[in-house]
Amino acid sequence: MTQSKRPVILVTNDDGITAPGLHALVDAMKDLGDITVVAPDSPQSGMGHAITINNLLRVDKVDLHGNHNWYQCSGTPVDCVKLAIDKILHRKPDLCVSGINHGSNSSINVIYSGTMSAAMEGAIEGIPSAGFSMLDYALDADFSAAKIYARRIAQLILENGLPKGTLLNVNIPKMTFDEIKGVKVCRQAMAKWVEEFDERTDPTKRKYYWLTGKFINEDKGQDTDEWALANGYISVVPVQFDFTAHHAIPFLNGLDYNVK
Amino acid sequence: MTQSKRPVILVTNDDGITAPGLHALVDAMKDLGDITVVAPDSPQSGMGHAITINNLLRVDKVDLHGNHNWYQCSGTPVDCVKLAIDKILHRKPDLCVSGINHGSNSSINVIYSGTMSAAMEGAIEGIPSAGFSMLDYALDADFSAAKIYARRIAQLILENGLPKGTLLNVNIPKMTFDEIKGVKVCRQAMAKWVEEFDERTDPTKRKYYWLTGKFINEDKGQDTDEWALANGYISVVPVQFDFTAHHAIPFLNGLDYNVK
Repeated sequence: MTQSKRPVILVTNDDGITAPGLHALVDAMKDLGDITVVAPDSPQSGMGHAITINNLLRVDKVDLHGNHNWYQCSGTPVDCVKLAIDKILHRKPDLCVSGINHGSNSSINVIYSGTMSAAMEGAIEGIPSAGFSMLDYALDADFSAAKIYARRIAQLILENGLPKGTLLNVNIPKMTFDEIKGVKVCRQAMAKWVEEFDERTDPTKRKYYWLTGKFINEDKGQDTDEWALANGYISVVPVQFDFTAHHAIPFLNGLDYNVK
Repeated sequence: MTQSKRPVILVTNDDGITAPGLHALVDAMKDLGDITVVAPDSPQSGMGHAITINNLLRVDKVDLHGNHNWYQCSGTPVDCVKLAIDKILHRKPDLCVSGINHGSNSSINVIYSGTMSAAMEGAIEGIPSAGFSMLDYALDADFSAAKIYARRIAQLILENGLPKGTLLNVNIPKMTFDEIKGVKVCRQAMAKWVEEFDERTDPTKRKYYWLTGKFINEDKGQDTDEWALANGYISVVPVQFDFTAHHAIPFLNGLDYNVK
């Protein structure tokens, strides 16, 4: 347990403990508080809000960066946040940040993203939380502009908090610092993936499949994250974990459920 | 591809192809349309909206119930829905139902639930979709009342559709048909889990953990799913996959993101 008055910042991701994006995020946060990293020991992209309930979990301290507190966990991104609070920090951190993801988590990707699910788990715990993603899948992606904006957004969260029950989904276009026009607060674009499974045959002649797909955005709104990113802005979408479609309640109240 | 005019109904779950709850749901749907089952080949509880992107997927036809179309898939519940559309049905079904889950998916559990994520994937595809869960973890749970209500709700969805961008989260209390008071349309209760990881030592003296926790509901509203279930009602919560916290946008627009 820290004795410091500096904020306690939990950093995690879904690309795993060795991902350059995680190291970039730690670097961006380092003068804002005392950092503890708890990240998956292997890539966990696309894990959504999965938790490990039918298997055991391991957590090991790793010596990757001298005086930082770095831990690798055998579980999912959400497991990392849960374990960090209960078994490593023994308290709730003041800020939970996840990323920087190698690849976009804009629009519908928020649902599949381990990066965003880790941040959502932080928010469920009542911790101000944000996920950061960069629109570049490359292992050697240039995070220099992303780091400057991630630091600023984290600072704003530490100073101002976030509205109850919300977290931030921050996506950064693949651009230099000079090219980025600024930050736009957006809504999630109503886009989706159309699957095209790649069918193959293994050496024993059995069929198997790989998930592939095309991203389709038919949402033409200029207030969406997709619009912002396509037009040179960093997108910030406030996300909530109350999934209730409140507007649908009157329609559902009009149906006759009686079976007696 | 079916030549029938009857609705095509896709049934899936997260407890796996052998779970009694899946068989109960198929039984409840059988006179409403032509059923295809695509379910995980092993239990996938707590998988949330996970998808398989770093591994291959297998799908095999299984002969469990004579003339039905039953398939088991090596992936997650969401993978099952995606594969069913692209490689098994070769079209979108008219209804996608998931469950009946052995255990509650009310309140915050909607986020962790593979059952609900499968239904959400159906809804993202534009298919009227619902997840059904029963508040009984037992393998020999009595699904007789649940089946009657699942059938009625599925029939209402087929007849009336659902508001755009929404799906249903249906939870059924552990009660007899006579004890159940009816159906209540609700909002998701703002409850959560408090983790208490169980720490153990393996034969080589290394520590490991099991996820355990306590469910805490401090939401006293009488319009929540938790209230309905505790008071003898089946809860129906409309769920949406637009996670944007629209009410938080003005607050976020008031912050100064400038770093230049």
